This record gives sequence, structure tokens and C-alpha cells, in this order.
Amino acid sequence: MLESKGYQGGSLEFLKSNHVAVGDSVKILAGITYSGIIMPRYEHSDDQHVVIKLKSGYNIGLEIAKIEKIEKNQTTENITQTFRQITKKDGLPKVLLLSTGGTIASKIDYRTGAVTPALTAQELNSSVPELSEIASMDAKVILSKYSENIMPEDWVEIADKIAEFEKSDYSGIIVAHGTDTMHYTSSFLSFALAGFPIPIVLVGSQRSSDRASSDAALNLIGATKFITKAQTKGVYVVMHQDENDNTVACHIGTRVRKNHTSKRGAFQTIGDNPAFIVGEEQIQKNINKEFFSTKDFQPRIKLDTKVALVKYHPGYDPKILEQVIDSGIKGIIFEGTGLGHIGKVMYGSVKKAKEMGIFLGMTSQCVEGRVRMTVYESGRDLLSLGVTPLENMIPEVALVKAMWVLGNYEDSEEIKKIMLQKIASEISN
Amino acid sequence: MLESKGYQGGSLEFLKSNHVAVGDSVKILAGITYSGIIMPRYEHSDDQHVVIKLKSGYNIGLEIAKIEKIEKNQTTENITQTFRQITKKDGLPKVLLLSTGGTIASKIDYRTGAVTPALTAQELNSSVPELSEIASMDAKVILSKYSENIMPEDWVEIADKIAEFEKSDYSGIIVAHGTDTMHYTSSFLSFALAGFPIPIVLVGSQRSSDRASSDAALNLIGATKFITKAQTKGVYVVMHQDENDNTVACHIGTRVRKNHTSKRGAFQTIGDNPAFIVGEEQIQKNINKEFFSTKDFQPRIKLDTKVALVKYHPGYDPKILEQVIDSGIKGIIFEGTGLGHIGKVMYGSVKKAKEMGIFLGMTSQCVEGRVRMTVYESGRDLLSLGVTPLENMIPEVALVKAMWVLGNYEDSEEIKKIMLQKIASEISN
Repeated sequence: MLESKGYQGGSLEFLKSNHVAVGDSVKILAGITYSGIIMPRYEHSDDQHVVIKLKSGYNIGLEIAKIEKIEKNQTTENITQTFRQITKKDGLPKVLLLSTGGTIASKIDYRTGAVTPALTAQELNSSVPELSEIASMDAKVILSKYSENIMPEDWVEIADKIAEFEKSDYSGIIVAHGTDTMHYTSSFLSFALAGFPIPIVLVGSQRSSDRASSDAALNLIGATKFITKAQTKGVYVVMHQDENDNTVACHIGTRVRKNHTSKRGAFQTIGDNPAFIVGEEQIQKNINKEFFSTKDFQPRIKLDTKVALVKYHPGYDPKILEQVIDSGIKGIIFEGTGLGHIGKVMYGSVKKAKEMGIFLGMTSQCVEGRVRMTVYESGRDLLSLGVTPLENMIPEVALVKAMWVLGNYEDSEEIKKIMLQKIASEISN
Repeated sequence: MLESKGYQGGSLEFLKSNHVAVGDSVKILAGITYSGIIMPRYEHSDDQHVVIKLKSGYNIGLEIAKIEKIEKNQTTENITQTFRQITKKDGLPKVLLLSTGGTIASKIDYRTGAVTPALTAQELNSSVPELSEIASMDAKVILSKYSENIMPEDWVEIADKIAEFEKSDYSGIIVAHGTDTMHYTSSFLSFALAGFPIPIVLVGSQRSSDRASSDAALNLIGATKFITKAQTKGVYVVMHQDENDNTVACHIGTRVRKNHTSKRGAFQTIGDNPAFIVGEEQIQKNINKEFFSTKDFQPRIKLDTKVALVKYHPGYDPKILEQVIDSGIKGIIFEGTGLGHIGKVMYGSVKKAKEMGIFLGMTSQCVEGRVRMTVYESGRDLLSLGVTPLENMIPEVALVKAMWVLGNYEDSEEIKKIMLQKIASEISN
């Protein structure tokens, strides 16, 4: 069957006349030689390009006019995989793998070309047979979503599911998650499950797990080693440390950010080294302190999404802030400039927001460093208008914390107090 | 005269009984010994603290109950400075210094405690006598504003002033500027003055220039050396490379970001080394390419501020985007997640915005790396909704560029074309 999904006109003719189709593994000569799989077209309806997925996992569009030759590869890639049945070994620590979707749990359907979050947690587990040497893995699917579509309601669902295992015999819980918003989810779990007795480790991958270049296996193995050997608790994000395949970094779940769109070492601890580095043979610990300031597990799995993140910039129209205020918002996290400033043009709206009882917190769009609002006139003005400086909390983390605080506390003094109280290492020294 | 500005109750009593006052240089024993100047109080009206400004330039609040001893320093700091008259040497290259305000042009008034952007360009010049050995400096004040209060209208004023010197005998122009939004201003100048025949160099400082720890002198000297010796053109931000006093970094004005709230090496080139490093004796060049793609200077000093920067996050209320759209906006720059995604919950509003003819551009909140919207379903969905992926443009730069493009072009196809066209190195490989 000739598949030509999305192709039309010139490009459809081109495929037909060369006896190739969507899903075929091909070699294309166009200046240099490209090898990859013909992908369906989703984008604009231009008919002058053929799109192939390279081994790197990325797609490339090639102009038909520049293609000298296209032919099917003799040995096509093995596109179906049979997952092994894992035999559990006795005596190994138990680890629970919860899958929410994302690239780590996705595979390419070579007939439709879509990368979909379709692997079950069991398949994910089975696709990395090394795991069975380290731990006895159980696996469950909670969600199948790319993380750009994970909503605060999903955070609650994930936290509720984890909370069920408070008194289990698991050594820790791995949450397979898309990388786009993994640091938002890790922040919520850090606050909602403060004091949880076993480590919670979010793991993602930047390349889908049925590709040779995938980082999924190393990240999963690293996370499992970390859980079984580091003897710690807390919420962590575990990902490749850099572009090498030697080490994974364990980042504190409230101090981490996705700082690169595509690199495997995209996740970084802000302003510090990662809390742990997991190597082939040993685990290096870089922190002395406890992750949670509270020792007793007392889940608070509620939130209120009526919080806005307002990134100030020259030309920011204060009318937009007015509309945010009038929309029934209960908290605003400013991403100010420098030490925590916003232009005087915003003061009128800030004053109004304060009078309406809205919590106002200040972070910095610099990302690194601490806000200090007593140094300059602008900072002092904003302090006197009632804006709370949030130390060195990362803006995204401050947003999630505000949603959590507003969902669990009502008194405005208490809200301010808890926002500044270190719950899960979100403020560092 | 006993100055006690802002102090009341317990803290006022404390100052009085110890015969010290605001503006005094004091030594305080409170566990360890602090030395600094007593500052007025601006913040909350608590009466249990005394605030002093340390030599580092930062303020610290000390709890009265913990102060064992407070005494005036015998040798008080020299708080007034007489600026030397600079004798110009013949034969040196000419450099123009335009001051807009900011910490680099500020000093502390020790009687009121305020740090104000008050130094004139001439004072700034005279306060760094080394400059007269390198160049013949002329100086003018354009504005006296901290950069959190610099507005797009100010960018236009600065650009207009610089454009007057197109056919001058200056080797380059230094713009002294606050650091908070310096990278926004440098972006606008890069687009508005594309092809300008001499280098334009923005210089700031993280500590005010009458403090010993100030970085103002090294940054100014570095900028002047760079202008007179690097034989280049373009718009650059010149700041300390790191916490050492050995080198300054010259960053491409469209590839730079303030990435730390307080460090002297806060400015960084995103995804690359700084274009030039100026050391004591030599200048290291790290780039081969030209700054401007255009060779001829053809100023386009207009802008339209009807552009919004929308940072997507889980829980972003699409109603806020609707309000932005309905406010008469002409362009939206999304700060998406990962490779350039926003949640499906936003699609309805995106579609509406497109139908209204609003330019929609995608950048990534990861800051580093390139958006690629053909890899995942979400990206492809957004492409088909008419969102333009803006390569590896920094979100803040994309915002400024959109203001500039919308101020100078009307046709929607042309707007999209210019947004993707490399004008001033804002897109890199």
C-alpha cells in the first residue's frame, strides 16, 4: 500500500515516481547523503519538500528540486520491537514506576509518523532490561500526555496516586514525565507531599525511547540506582548531566529548570551543583541539608490556579495587568528585572492589586541570584506598596508555590509567611 | 544635627542613646563586626532594626537586641569627591559617552541614603582618569533614569541621538545605561541603527561608581579600549566577564541576557562565547561573522509597542490571552515550553488571534537552544495554526524585534519575512 499522508502535487508525484512512500527507510542524495524515514506532512501545504526523520530523531525537509537521488534502504530499520518478559529477581529493592507520558514513554508510529506518548509503563520497564538487575520494578500508567498539556489538575492526580504509597514497601517512586513542564510538576509534588517518606524521582528523556540516541535508558537506570542507593528522601528530577552517556544528575525538584530546548543535559540546578551525581559505580552527594524542612508527612494536595506570572519588560502595558487583576486572580508572581524591579508605570495597578488583597510576590527574570529590594529606590517603592521579595526562588517555582499556598491557606499573613518559609529547599542560601 | 530619617520607637531611641545618626560611618559588633554607613529606613515600620550600607554596596538590617556595641568610625569615609579636570591629549581617537542613568552614573547621597542616577556624563568620565590615556572623551547626558524605568520611547530618543553622529569623527559611542533592561535597549539599537558605521557600546555597572567595589571603571575602560582597538562595528554590551577584575566581555547586543541579579559577571552571551574579550593588553576575537547583515546605514527608528510577551505555564488561564488579544495588540511573542509548545487549552485563542491578523511568534522559555516545531504533535498543531517559529531568538529580543518590525512594516507577509531575516545577529547558527 502506497502511503502518502499529507503529500500532494509535486511532492506526491515525486514519491510515486520514485516508488517510495511514507514510512519507508530511504537514502537521499542532495549535496550530501541523508538517511532516514519518510515522514508524513503536517505543516503548510507546500508541495516542494519531502520530510525525513533522521537517526538523531529530528525531522528535516529536503527540497525536491535539489534531490539527485532517492532510494529505499536495503536493510530497513527494525520498527517493531518485542518486549521481553522480565523475570523478577528475589531480594532486590522494590521500585514503582508511574508513567504520565512524554517522550520517555513515546514511540514513533512509522506508518503515521506521529511521536505519541504510547508506551505503557510495563513496556517502558521492559525496554530497559538492565533495570531488573537493580530493582524489582512495578509499573502503572497514570496519564498519557505530553507535558505541555499537563495541567495543575494533573499534578493533583499524580500527587494523590503517589500519596497512596506512603506505607508501601517501595524504596522509591519514579514518575516518567515529559520534559517540557517536568520542573513545574516536581515543584508541586515537593510542596504537596512535603515529608514523604521515600524519594520521588521524575525522569524524562529528550529523544524517544525507541531511537538509538535516546537518553531514556540511562536516565531510568540512573534514577533507579539513585533510589536504591542514595538513602535519601525528597523530590528530584533525574536527567543526563551533559552530552556524555556517563553520568546522570539528580536535581532538587524546586531548584531545577529546563535550560535548553534540545540538549540531553538540558536540565540544570540553578545557582548550584546538582544535589547528586550518579555515575557508573558510585553516587556523589553535593548537599548536606535535608530536602524537606518538615520531617512528618502531612499531605496537602490542594491548589488554586488563580495565580498569574507577570514578566515585566519595557513597554509592558499596565492595562494588561489591570485586566489580570480584574479577572479574579488571588496572587501575582512578578518576574521583575535585576534585583526585583518593575517600572513606575506599573505602580498604580500594583497599588490597586494590594488593596484588593491579592498576594504580590517578586522574583527575577535573571533566573540566577537573589532579589534584594532595599538597594534601589524602585525596590523600596515596591516594598512599601506591599510586594513580598521571594529571595532566590525561581519564578516558575514561585508560581507553583503560590498556587499551592493559596489552595491550602486563607489568611493573608499566613500566606505571606508560608511563601517565605522553606518547605522543600525552594529557597537556598 | 542628629539625622534619624525613617527611624522610630526602639530603633530611634537606640541611635540617640548611642550618639550616632543616619549618614554616620560606624562599626557594629553583633556576633561579628560590621563596618558601614547608617542608612535611612524606607521599608516597613518595624523599630527593631538598624540598617547599614556595607562596603560591598549592599544594605544589611541588624536587630537591635543582638547589637553588643555600636561606635562611630574614627576615620570617616571621604564622602565628597572633587572631580579632576581632564586635560585632553592630542592625537588620541575620539569617543563619545552618552549617559542615560543607571548605577554606572549613580552615587549615594550619604545624608539621604538614596542611590540616585545623578552623575553627569562629564563626572563619569572624570571619575575614571585612565580614560584620558586611551581616548579623547566627549560626554553628554541624554536621560537620568534607572533602566527599569526606561521605556520604548526612551529607546527611540537614544537612537535618534546616536543617529546624529553618523558622520562624526568619533571612533565609537558609549552609552552608559542601567543594567536591568540594558539588553532590551541594545536589541532595539541593533535593529533601528542596522549598519551604523561605528561601534555602539552599552556599558553598565552592578555597583555604584563611587564605591570601592564598583565595576564601573573597568567596564568603561574596557569599552573604550574595545572601541579604539577592535576595529569592528555593531551594537555590544560590555561588562565584567566574571568576578575577577581582569577582563571585560563584549556581548553581541541581540544575543545577551542579564542572567544574575547581582554578580558583576551577570551578563552572558546565550549559547556561545562573548564576541570579544578585552584583557589588560589584548583583545581576543571569538567571532568571524559581521554583526549587521546590512552594510549600508539606513536608520529605521520607529516602533509599535502593541506587542505582548506571553509566557506559557501549566495553569495559564486562556482568558488572559483573550484579553490580550482584545486589547488591540498587533503581535504576540510566546515564550513556550521546550522546543516551542503551549498547551492545547490555548489553541482556541491562538486561532482567534491569527484570524484577527495578529503576528504570532514562538520562542522558548528554556532560553538556550532553538525552537523546532516539526518534531512533536503540539509543535505541528501550532504551525498549522499560523505560529511562526523564531529559531533561537532570545524571547526578550524577539519581543523588541516585533515592536520594531511592526513599527516599520505593514504587510503581514513582509512582517513575517523580516522577523525571520537576520538583521543584527539575533539569530545564530
